[in-house]
Amino acid sequence: MSTKSLGSDSFQLGVCYYPEHWSEQLWDDDFRRMKEMGFSIVRVAEFAWTIFEPEDGRFAFDLFDRALDTAHRHGLKIIMGTPTATPPAWLTHRYPEVLNARPDGVVYRHGQRRHYNYSSPVYRFYCERIVRRMARHYSEHPAVVGWQIDNELNCETNDFHSDADHIAFRQWTRKQYGTLDKLNVAWGTVFWSQTYTDWEQVFLTRPTPSNSPNPHQLLDEKRFISDNAISFARLQADIIREDAPNHWVTTNGLFGRLDNHEMTDELLNFFSYDSYPQFSSLEDPDHRESLRDRKWSLSLSESRSVSPQFCVMEQQSGPGGWVNQMEMPAPRPGQARLWTYQSIAHGADMLLYFRWRTATMGTEIYWHGINDYHNRPNRRVREIAQVGEELGRIGSLITGKSFQASIALLEDYDNVWDSEFDVWVRPLRWKSRDSWHKALQERHIPVDVVYMRESTTLEDLQRYEALVYAHATILTTERAALLDAYVKGGGTLIMGARTGYKDQRGQCRMIPFPGLAADWCGITVEDFTLCNANYPAAGAQWNDSGLSPLSTAIFNEVLSVESETAEIMATYTSEYYSGQAALSRNRYGQGTAWYLGSAFTEEAVHGILDRIGIASPAEGWVELPKQVELAIRGDIAFLLNYSQEPVQLNFLQPVTDLLSGNRLSELSELSPYGVLVIQR
Amino acid sequence: MSTKSLGSDSFQLGVCYYPEHWSEQLWDDDFRRMKEMGFSIVRVAEFAWTIFEPEDGRFAFDLFDRALDTAHRHGLKIIMGTPTATPPAWLTHRYPEVLNARPDGVVYRHGQRRHYNYSSPVYRFYCERIVRRMARHYSEHPAVVGWQIDNELNCETNDFHSDADHIAFRQWTRKQYGTLDKLNVAWGTVFWSQTYTDWEQVFLTRPTPSNSPNPHQLLDEKRFISDNAISFARLQADIIREDAPNHWVTTNGLFGRLDNHEMTDELLNFFSYDSYPQFSSLEDPDHRESLRDRKWSLSLSESRSVSPQFCVMEQQSGPGGWVNQMEMPAPRPGQARLWTYQSIAHGADMLLYFRWRTATMGTEIYWHGINDYHNRPNRRVREIAQVGEELGRIGSLITGKSFQASIALLEDYDNVWDSEFDVWVRPLRWKSRDSWHKALQERHIPVDVVYMRESTTLEDLQRYEALVYAHATILTTERAALLDAYVKGGGTLIMGARTGYKDQRGQCRMIPFPGLAADWCGITVEDFTLCNANYPAAGAQWNDSGLSPLSTAIFNEVLSVESETAEIMATYTSEYYSGQAALSRNRYGQGTAWYLGSAFTEEAVHGILDRIGIASPAEGWVELPKQVELAIRGDIAFLLNYSQEPVQLNFLQPVTDLLSGNRLSELSELSPYGVLVIQR
Amino acid sequence: MSTKSLGSDSFQLGVCYYPEHWSEQLWDDDFRRMKEMGFSIVRVAEFAWTIFEPEDGRFAFDLFDRALDTAHRHGLKIIMGTPTATPPAWLTHRYPEVLNARPDGVVYRHGQRRHYNYSSPVYRFYCERIVRRMARHYSEHPAVVGWQIDNELNCETNDFHSDADHIAFRQWTRKQYGTLDKLNVAWGTVFWSQTYTDWEQVFLTRPTPSNSPNPHQLLDEKRFISDNAISFARLQADIIREDAPNHWVTTNGLFGRLDNHEMTDELLNFFSYDSYPQFSSLEDPDHRESLRDRKWSLSLSESRSVSPQFCVMEQQSGPGGWVNQMEMPAPRPGQARLWTYQSIAHGADMLLYFRWRTATMGTEIYWHGINDYHNRPNRRVREIAQVGEELGRIGSLITGKSFQASIALLEDYDNVWDSEFDVWVRPLRWKSRDSWHKALQERHIPVDVVYMRESTTLEDLQRYEALVYAHATILTTERAALLDAYVKGGGTLIMGARTGYKDQRGQCRMIPFPGLAADWCGITVEDFTLCNANYPAAGAQWNDSGLSPLSTAIFNEVLSVESETAEIMATYTSEYYSGQAALSRNRYGQGTAWYLGSAFTEEAVHGILDRIGIASPAEGWVELPKQVELAIRGDIAFLLNYSQEPVQLNFLQPVTDLLSGNRLSELSELSPYGVLVIQR
Repeated sequence: MSTKSLGSDSFQLGVCYYPEHWSEQLWDDDFRRMKEMGFSIVRVAEFAWTIFEPEDGRFAFDLFDRALDTAHRHGLKIIMGTPTATPPAWLTHRYPEVLNARPDGVVYRHGQRRHYNYSSPVYRFYCERIVRRMARHYSEHPAVVGWQIDNELNCETNDFHSDADHIAFRQWTRKQYGTLDKLNVAWGTVFWSQTYTDWEQVFLTRPTPSNSPNPHQLLDEKRFISDNAISFARLQADIIREDAPNHWVTTNGLFGRLDNHEMTDELLNFFSYDSYPQFSSLEDPDHRESLRDRKWSLSLSESRSVSPQFCVMEQQSGPGGWVNQMEMPAPRPGQARLWTYQSIAHGADMLLYFRWRTATMGTEIYWHGINDYHNRPNRRVREIAQVGEELGRIGSLITGKSFQASIALLEDYDNVWDSEFDVWVRPLRWKSRDSWHKALQERHIPVDVVYMRESTTLEDLQRYEALVYAHATILTTERAALLDAYVKGGGTLIMGARTGYKDQRGQCRMIPFPGLAADWCGITVEDFTLCNANYPAAGAQWNDSGLSPLSTAIFNEVLSVESETAEIMATYTSEYYSGQAALSRNRYGQGTAWYLGSAFTEEAVHGILDRIGIASPAEGWVELPKQVELAIRGDIAFLLNYSQEPVQLNFLQPVTDLLSGNRLSELSELSPYGVLVIQR
Repeated sequence: MSTKSLGSDSFQLGVCYYPEHWSEQLWDDDFRRMKEMGFSIVRVAEFAWTIFEPEDGRFAFDLFDRALDTAHRHGLKIIMGTPTATPPAWLTHRYPEVLNARPDGVVYRHGQRRHYNYSSPVYRFYCERIVRRMARHYSEHPAVVGWQIDNELNCETNDFHSDADHIAFRQWTRKQYGTLDKLNVAWGTVFWSQTYTDWEQVFLTRPTPSNSPNPHQLLDEKRFISDNAISFARLQADIIREDAPNHWVTTNGLFGRLDNHEMTDELLNFFSYDSYPQFSSLEDPDHRESLRDRKWSLSLSESRSVSPQFCVMEQQSGPGGWVNQMEMPAPRPGQARLWTYQSIAHGADMLLYFRWRTATMGTEIYWHGINDYHNRPNRRVREIAQVGEELGRIGSLITGKSFQASIALLEDYDNVWDSEFDVWVRPLRWKSRDSWHKALQERHIPVDVVYMRESTTLEDLQRYEALVYAHATILTTERAALLDAYVKGGGTLIMGARTGYKDQRGQCRMIPFPGLAADWCGITVEDFTLCNANYPAAGAQWNDSGLSPLSTAIFNEVLSVESETAEIMATYTSEYYSGQAALSRNRYGQGTAWYLGSAFTEEAVHGILDRIGIASPAEGWVELPKQVELAIRGDIAFLLNYSQEPVQLNFLQPVTDLLSGNRLSELSELSPYGVLVIQR
Repeated sequence: MSTKSLGSDSFQLGVCYYPEHWSEQLWDDDFRRMKEMGFSIVRVAEFAWTIFEPEDGRFAFDLFDRALDTAHRHGLKIIMGTPTATPPAWLTHRYPEVLNARPDGVVYRHGQRRHYNYSSPVYRFYCERIVRRMARHYSEHPAVVGWQIDNELNCETNDFHSDADHIAFRQWTRKQYGTLDKLNVAWGTVFWSQTYTDWEQVFLTRPTPSNSPNPHQLLDEKRFISDNAISFARLQADIIREDAPNHWVTTNGLFGRLDNHEMTDELLNFFSYDSYPQFSSLEDPDHRESLRDRKWSLSLSESRSVSPQFCVMEQQSGPGGWVNQMEMPAPRPGQARLWTYQSIAHGADMLLYFRWRTATMGTEIYWHGINDYHNRPNRRVREIAQVGEELGRIGSLITGKSFQASIALLEDYDNVWDSEFDVWVRPLRWKSRDSWHKALQERHIPVDVVYMRESTTLEDLQRYEALVYAHATILTTERAALLDAYVKGGGTLIMGARTGYKDQRGQCRMIPFPGLAADWCGITVEDFTLCNANYPAAGAQWNDSGLSPLSTAIFNEVLSVESETAEIMATYTSEYYSGQAALSRNRYGQGTAWYLGSAFTEEAVHGILDRIGIASPAEGWVELPKQVELAIRGDIAFLLNYSQEPVQLNFLQPVTDLLSGNRLSELSELSPYGVLVIQR
């Protein structure tokens, strides 16, 4: 497990602020009011390159010097952002090679953000210089405590196709494979005569007929993009470590094609997440059965898998969206506060709202800050001031405590990246992820996310009674060995359709399904089909008493028992494989392995959870309705009501709510979007 | 108000004709039949550049000379089109810099029309030369009476991205702002470090990640495109004025990113519109609640706002569409005639059908003319001959008379252009525009459209009892002053959500909502949210007797009364703001200002109209069903039945239908698509 | 009719195999098992260019020599594929001019297949060389019997926009037209001033505003693409004829913009089709009323129109799809066997499954072969082994026999290509094609497809009692003369809306609708409209006893009887043309011509078939449910059950099923996806 955790004694609440956007006359009042609201920390400067370097090689720190001094007078601490997400016009105009490009070669131009590439030596030169100048200038400033590198790496696009990227990818493959023979084998280039005979022929994927590049090349492309982003962050981290050695370093966001675990382990002090649960108010066709804003808890669990205690660098404070897209309604009364405690319940020990006041210009005029354009009192100011007051009282009771979970969802970057392109696997993953999260939420069973990495140990896994590795299509021998030991050692492992048939290159193994997982699962897959609207997934039922139904989805595999210790737990009830096995359970060593030949529906998850017996930590002291999430950090329990209606809780033992000081026993109402924080 | 109006004593009916498309043997018969049908005017030549200039610098007028002479023999008058919408292949092939380009730089090529840009000096040279040659050649031709410049400026695309356009835009910004500091302020470039430090860095918006250019730059881009189109038209208008001083000048169409008012005031004798109501038979997801072909009345009202009496240069005469898109059914019997009177009722004093005979080749083989390919008698010929006969009798009773309306919808180009890109505002505007138009149509209250321009005077506004300025997001101090005076002076002004929070640059004002409108509205907006499928707009109800419902849509603002003279007219009945104010009315000076914190639904419009007491001019003499539009020009009333069924009218006073000569009193049936023209 | 038919005494069953994809240790076992399954023929090498020519000019035949020798030892025959569909990286990297490009000029790059153009002299040089080397090397190999040229010409894309293509098109137009005057007339360039004055101005269609190129130019573009593909195939065919004169030549696939009839007649020994009926399990919005996998019978009929007996070079054997698209479920038990007999029933005398074993790498890891990655026994192996056994017994009873049909659907490339772009015609064609095919299938009336070509004779047509030429928009004088003679001679010809108004250039004739068909149809079209969701097609009814309904779709034409021999068979019952003629029948010479002023609905087809009296060949010996297809080859009847349920047949005479040897009489059950082969 990562030890790159935020190690703070007290909870730090704060806000993102852009002094360069406002009349200097507003600053003092702004900082004063921040302090009054209970804020202690402010992030600045991450989009201010032209302020710091108005012309190539001419540097100007006076604006931020004055702003930081003012903040410091009010006792606020400062996180400096490096401004490399928004290169100046003078830079991109003179050196267009620093720009990123679409897959078809069309170059992104000035006018938005994140239009650069990580590969260009010219861009790296300019980034190094501005970061070094800023680090040196602010290394001794009494207000500054840490740095955010760039802003939201791989946001806007995580696709790179500039000439510099093609060259960097070629170098990366050369380092990775050494010889073209090895590259040809890894990419399966014998298929369709794609064999490379000179390194000069190697590029990132480019336009092809039918938009269908080589899948193994594309998997490596994603590994490259992640490595390249980390290398770009490393450039900056190394400078800050050298020139501002007393400051911590982080970066913010959880975006695609980026191994946040590796980046955090190698470069950062801790991970930071940007939490915008109101995205859930938009139509989201990929997640039809989602839990709305409550599903952000799963992203927070991902963040916790990187840093057990982390920072939320941007917490949604109001309506969101750009002028031309992502139109989000206003959070309802209490909702912004609920989301704050959602972040904290999942491990945030530092949290900054985005942003102090809504921008009056530019793309983000509808990405509302706490204050409106007009700067008068409003509902958001009142609600967040309440949070500030509360955390001032109880923050230190929470800080540093660890989230408690007895079950974990396993994940790994190979499968995340490979499945993006794989239409047989991608929908399985989304469906099962949603089903597991929703069923566990409804049963009030907290869950961790664990990434299978080179550094993952058996001990890391054995912290959990049960592990769900729903569709580990790619299963390496190393990970298989770890899982084998976990089950043998007494763990419960749950797997689903399409497990284990690919290797690390995304090529298919010439061994029976489910590949390296066959041993502990005790079954093989004899026949299979994907399902769709014209070929619906079959029904199934449990074989134990009651024959209760277990719906399947997206894929149907017909299982054959291969081991004496395996038993068929559920059988199909329709299609030509009616009566054949859909779900198996194998006793293996001291443990148990479940295998479902399908995506997991919620019904399937509930059926399995009924039988493996993982209890909610609510058991024995409180009865909770479905609308409420339970999260535990050490001795602190968080109860979060995501519903617009008040709900009834039943406390079997009297407890005290730290927020209100109320003593709660027996039936008790929790208000719409209400929060309870209980020490037990 | 514009004085650029068509000043004609007699109604002129005519048709568009392409002699170059047909065997010369057909011409005489064609012109003879035109005359028989009651036509007096013919438009020609607007796509005939290669006829006039088959090679660079070689000119040939013989084909059109013969055609015009033939037309003249039949007593027909001619409108010459300048042929600049379709540059010859020899021109674009030799000088590709004259071509327009997609935003990503891909150049549009020969093979369609309107593939050129307005900026290229080369293109302007060639346009000047061909227009001058044509003007000189035809200035004394006895048949020619006027000129159409180009054809449908900004049709096909109103997006320009050629190199010449980038350069012209840079010059435009330089002229507009003088210094880069001013440009940087206007475009809010401090946001995301977009500051420009050299004019060479300034371009029209170009490809960015997430397709999201700077919104203030984009607003200026639209202003530039309009100015540039006008400048291109001016080039031609000046030549015609100089070389054919006895001819009038117009151009046709009502397309985006073009200030038709400015163009007409500065260059033209009058405005011309191209009316194709059958577009309404296509699926149109943006206008789900539209009035179908009857909604063309609103476009005709826009045309009337440019020229009180205008020309319809192209009136739909049959099924329409290109070979590969826009597939329109045939107008039903009577429908083409109905649409003709729709145009006339709204102010057309000259009207040409498009086109004499359907093209047998090219993109428009399904854009049917009056005659079919086969040139035999058909239903369209018969119907339009009837119109010709009728207008021959009654046209002069209508010509020159002014449309009568006591209410107007306010509009301005700043908001039209800014809202195109703004997803918070665009749907508000469409919804409210539809609701107002539909409700006024159903109540038989004629309505004008008035554009707020620099030249707009208080007198222009005071012609109306009531003005609707539904979502004037951008509200300049000049316009605010005018509106203030209008209300103070006794007018009724009705405004809706998101009024007044932006300035002319599209940046947000740091004053409470609704900005400069707060004074006369007497309220501020305390809390607000946009609404969507996942967050439905709240219900509301009227506070006066009956508590009748008033539905809201798209946006909900919670109003706070700030003035003693303001009263809450309706309150929300759901959501967390239930019981709070949704609609206010403020007595201000001698007048009244209404403010609705939402888009206007039809229900809301009817509720407001019930209370402000604007009567239909039908009152007292005829009772009309909803299917019938009433329009008044001077002493002439037009009754238009848009329905496929006959409808019942009830004449309280006897009247005479000028078309049929019938005396109508008490219950009277109006046939499907039927028209009555009544002098009172 | 074509004589380019597969002339084989015995049925040849086989499989596609890629020795280069597998460890050489697997080969012997693979070939042995093929032989055991009843396979006699194997296709290889069509994607193996880099195996044969690993570097420019260095050739290596050893891998395939060893593979072919092994196959030969097992008594298998070999079809060699020329590998030109997948140029090596060294070729495309060094000579990017060989690559194809998108319409906007973006070049397709290495990483998939079919990314080259047919026009580049460089590509033709390299293709010639590799084909010649292969032909010479394998001309005397005892296993090799024939060649497949390239692979699936015009698959992936049939759009070409490389510089080489533009040049080749210019040469093609020059040859076609001789003078620019003729080209200008053919393309109707007088419309919109598109006149060409220099050959250098002539290009394939390029980007235009509104994506709307000249339709006549586009029609020629498709003719060019077909000619160019054939010319590319000819290059290879000529070499093989010269250097491997004892081998036959074919190519595979049925793709757009390619005149397979001309190609086969000129270059090939017979036509080969690739049959993947499981595509029907995907959502297909263009074919909502399709017959699912049974509609592949129509494509097989198209193949039969090229070669009366043909080869299926790729027959689907399992689930299909690429890693990122086209996700197909598994065929259900019996379905792959059913599809095999579907191919055979329609004229296949040679059939190879795609492919022996699923690829473990590359784009097609989900395009399943007979064997799974793991190479163990599976359901597919068992099912296809059964087919091998059956055809070993009965194949020779079928081979060489001709499909029997008394009705044919007429088709021609002019209309296929012209209608792709024409939104008035395209939906008519799809609707009517579906309706005719479905109704004939349900009535168990086998149907041929006949392409109207220059070589088509009256005798070719007179083989059929009735011909359906549903929407022959383009009708040439030659084809009209042939049809006239067919009807006069006693045939029944059925035509639908929009017949005959275009000439071969796609330009509209200046004669009344239905143009050249008016004579034998005995009607003209007076009024017409296309219909859509906002303007629904009218109802109609039969005028004979019962007044049974006849629904119309997409278009409504109002017919006027022009001939004494014509009678109105059905009249419209709604819309303004209610009571007017929708369907006519004309006695003309010895024959009859029907004309329907609409697309054909299934209801309309059944009504017409009820009245023209074409019987099913099932009549008198078996009663069949709708789910079963009947196909006849000579004295062999095939009964194919496409349903997942068993169905009841009623044999009025006892027959013997050749597959099972069962004697069938009276009621008999046919299993799900079951097949009967009966000799009568």
